[in-house]
Amino acid sequence: MEINVIKVGGKIVEEQHSLDALLELFSNIKGAKVLIHGGGRSATRIATLLGIESKMVDGRRITDAETLKVVTMVYGGLVNKSIVSALQMRGVNALGLTGADMGVIKSCKRPVKDIDYGFVGDVKSVDGGRLASIVESGIVPVMAPLSFSPEHGLLNTNADTIAAETAKSLVPYFDVTLTYCFEKRGVLMNENDDDSVIPQITRSLYKEYKEKGVITGGMIPKLDNAFDAIDCGVKRVVITRADQIGLDEGSVIMEN
Amino acid sequence: MEINVIKVGGKIVEEQHSLDALLELFSNIKGAKVLIHGGGRSATRIATLLGIESKMVDGRRITDAETLKVVTMVYGGLVNKSIVSALQMRGVNALGLTGADMGVIKSCKRPVKDIDYGFVGDVKSVDGGRLASIVESGIVPVMAPLSFSPEHGLLNTNADTIAAETAKSLVPYFDVTLTYCFEKRGVLMNENDDDSVIPQITRSLYKEYKEKGVITGGMIPKLDNAFDAIDCGVKRVVITRADQIGLDEGSVIMEN
Repeated sequence: MEINVIKVGGKIVEEQHSLDALLELFSNIKGAKVLIHGGGRSATRIATLLGIESKMVDGRRITDAETLKVVTMVYGGLVNKSIVSALQMRGVNALGLTGADMGVIKSCKRPVKDIDYGFVGDVKSVDGGRLASIVESGIVPVMAPLSFSPEHGLLNTNADTIAAETAKSLVPYFDVTLTYCFEKRGVLMNENDDDSVIPQITRSLYKEYKEKGVITGGMIPKLDNAFDAIDCGVKRVVITRADQIGLDEGSVIMEN
Repeated sequence: MEINVIKVGGKIVEEQHSLDALLELFSNIKGAKVLIHGGGRSATRIATLLGIESKMVDGRRITDAETLKVVTMVYGGLVNKSIVSALQMRGVNALGLTGADMGVIKSCKRPVKDIDYGFVGDVKSVDGGRLASIVESGIVPVMAPLSFSPEHGLLNTNADTIAAETAKSLVPYFDVTLTYCFEKRGVLMNENDDDSVIPQITRSLYKEYKEKGVITGGMIPKLDNAFDAIDCGVKRVVITRADQIGLDEGSVIMEN
């Protein structure tokens, strides 16, 4: 059986218009599916209103105890439950989850090296068996970017990582396609030309494009993660724009 | 098989000390169990910080669109997930739910009569079959006071009602005990004497005490709800203090 594991970023989730469009497409995807959402800037906005300063280092949020409360509210509550409710209204039997719910995503608190990220989790394991049985009963998990540490409780966690680890955990039970939505139509030959999508990226092509400087910057960790998922048995990874999910558009990453 | 459906109010949930004590007692209860929590005043506090005015009529919150976002964040996110995480840390396999999750609690928006309560739900049905199968797989549902309307989405909902309807929905599957925790040790003969708990309240005793003016005020709707649950097959209803749950203390409401 096939399953679609789809990750959408916080930006898309934050705007009612783009969220509605996404949920409409997601609702139309047939068969087993999982949605993983990012947090986005609403947490920063709400933290500011609550008088909590948001500290970012290299684009990563430093999560102190007060900030953890805010992301628990916003990611685990407002964003997650709004998506669940909107999907239910479209007839999708959604179930919102953080990593603490049924202990589905276990993590450990990131060790302090140069930077103390605070209450941030590095994923240790995803309970694929539990998720598979939920999915097989017709339920669609909607996962917030929060994992669970038995020592520390809830931890703020990167949604891309949760998506990759969730996809990998489902490999024993499904043929898994992992889709990352971002603002571009796919991996581009020319970052200023949205029509220059590379339709298929094999490992050898990736190597070549990296050497030639076609693929650079932030796309490299994304593709490294994609190939890591492929190495762990995920059938294909798709990098596409949110308004193209389920439409066989974007860049497909595959072993050969 | 027996099941304990336990409702705790927002006040207890809001204070770390009383919450910890409650979760410790709840963790120690053997067998199948469900926890239903109220919202409490943290929603009011956070709404105020966010510049949203809280309107109350007769102790009930008027839920406009902005307030609905706040209660979704606070009840469905902060409170619910903090409880789930704290239970997981105690080895209880908790799963946080709003009524939208798997559509477990369906409601309709309260009709406007004298007062427009806004996005407030009156419970229509609880999916007892779904909850029973979750519970039978060793999971402990933790339910937030939010229900789901297919027309309106999430709706702010009275936690006492959610507890009663949940208990009733589980009657075909379990011998159900419904416990309401509040600030007193039970139903009191003399409201100023916390040692005057009435240990057992049958329907005939209830009638007698109402006529004599022993049971008055806010206790009457509580007990009417309790007897309604009994009429629907709930084995017993316990009214007790949060620090006494699972300890066979408080007032037991029973048919005969």
